[in-house]
Amino acid sequence: MHAEQSSYSMTLAYDGAPFAGFARQPGQLTVQGELEHALRLVFRREVETVCAGRTDAGVHALGQVVSFQLEPGEMGERGERSFLRSMNALTHDGISVREVQQRADGFSARFDARFREYRYFICQQEAPPVFTAATSWHVSCPLDVVAMREAAQHLIGEHDFKSFCMAASAEGKPTCRNVSEISFAEERIMGERMLVVKVVGNAFLHSMVRAIVGSLVLVGRSKRAPGWMRDALAARDRQAAGENAPGRGLVLWHVEY
Amino acid sequence: MHAEQSSYSMTLAYDGAPFAGFARQPGQLTVQGELEHALRLVFRREVETVCAGRTDAGVHALGQVVSFQLEPGEMGERGERSFLRSMNALTHDGISVREVQQRADGFSARFDARFREYRYFICQQEAPPVFTAATSWHVSCPLDVVAMREAAQHLIGEHDFKSFCMAASAEGKPTCRNVSEISFAEERIMGERMLVVKVVGNAFLHSMVRAIVGSLVLVGRSKRAPGWMRDALAARDRQAAGENAPGRGLVLWHVEY
Repeated sequence: MHAEQSSYSMTLAYDGAPFAGFARQPGQLTVQGELEHALRLVFRREVETVCAGRTDAGVHALGQVVSFQLEPGEMGERGERSFLRSMNALTHDGISVREVQQRADGFSARFDARFREYRYFICQQEAPPVFTAATSWHVSCPLDVVAMREAAQHLIGEHDFKSFCMAASAEGKPTCRNVSEISFAEERIMGERMLVVKVVGNAFLHSMVRAIVGSLVLVGRSKRAPGWMRDALAARDRQAAGENAPGRGLVLWHVEY
Repeated sequence: MHAEQSSYSMTLAYDGAPFAGFARQPGQLTVQGELEHALRLVFRREVETVCAGRTDAGVHALGQVVSFQLEPGEMGERGERSFLRSMNALTHDGISVREVQQRADGFSARFDARFREYRYFICQQEAPPVFTAATSWHVSCPLDVVAMREAAQHLIGEHDFKSFCMAASAEGKPTCRNVSEISFAEERIMGERMLVVKVVGNAFLHSMVRAIVGSLVLVGRSKRAPGWMRDALAARDRQAAGENAPGRGLVLWHVEY
């Protein structure tokens, strides 16, 4: 980074369905690819972006944060409102850029995040969802939320979450993270019954929230006892925990700086 | 109807987008066409259906009610739960049949309805919606809800709603209806800002709710004064009221018997 550059962040929502994940990949439709393509048209040069959470294919975001660096005056010439309009016009319809703000010099959406909040939506009704079909996991049998809550308590705090990280991504990398909250709320969304699992932590491993939710649902369906979660965590082995919950139920909800 | 037949109703939700409306039309994908196709496979004969509200192309339902008549014992042989499973397996994914119940003899979803509740979802934020894009009308400029509430009061009660009825459908037919409630609520749906207009009445004319909402939005945008709504109603002329709001924001929410 040049010392004279200005740091900006944008906050964006996206529907994960059409994208092969956040991260740029040659020949694939990705959120980062769309953003950088639009930035190239707006600023007539390459602008690199850094995100708070690299969501997988199919995973949604309400409050993804993306940082980028501009030359002094580069934004001022067009104004932030016109920047937002251009970004929304130039990116895929599944992306909605909601805010842009100037940040302290050298700001990084990734490294400056204090915590990240994910929400996982489980549709809890016998009949299939209609309005929330694209943003929830339909689990038609009733879940024991009391047992899930008990199981979740074993994950709170600083732990090695290797059992909840996609195996290939965990090799030779630090897998300790701090999870500060896992809570459950029953809500109606467009009249459809939802169990919303809120997971807050300082940072997350690859597919960690989906592995946690998949494991919690095993407990909710009484396939495992709540105490099994402690053993699954202690094993430091991806095979010890439950399968990943589907990506379509997961939303990167908010990032705090 | 044969005296010995049993009356049933099913309650269903559907995403209006893929359908050319509720009502059966040759060669078109319709909700009624899908339901009657599935009923034919389940009962191995033609079963006619009657609905509470014939929604237009693109309009959704959370609590549409559909009645049909069966021979005695025809349902009993398979059980209501298995009936629901079959209906959901045999109809388009955009349809979710949620309940089936036996009713008093001769029950009609259309004629026995005491009142119908529609909800219209207006997405009130500058950036485009992502999660609610398919179920709301995006109005990016802020609406004056106080003025809209005042305008709506002119429509409450028994009135001739000819100004709010698709002209071709109003010819030579009674156009009096009783609207008992029009209320406004601000909600977040999947984090997106929504103004929800609830409209309750004994019955509705063709595209009446969409014409009411289109007119209310003219008032909300200060293009018309609240008192204009009284004149629009009195004119008994479709040209006097506002244009129809888009179908995708409208949901037939509930029907009371």
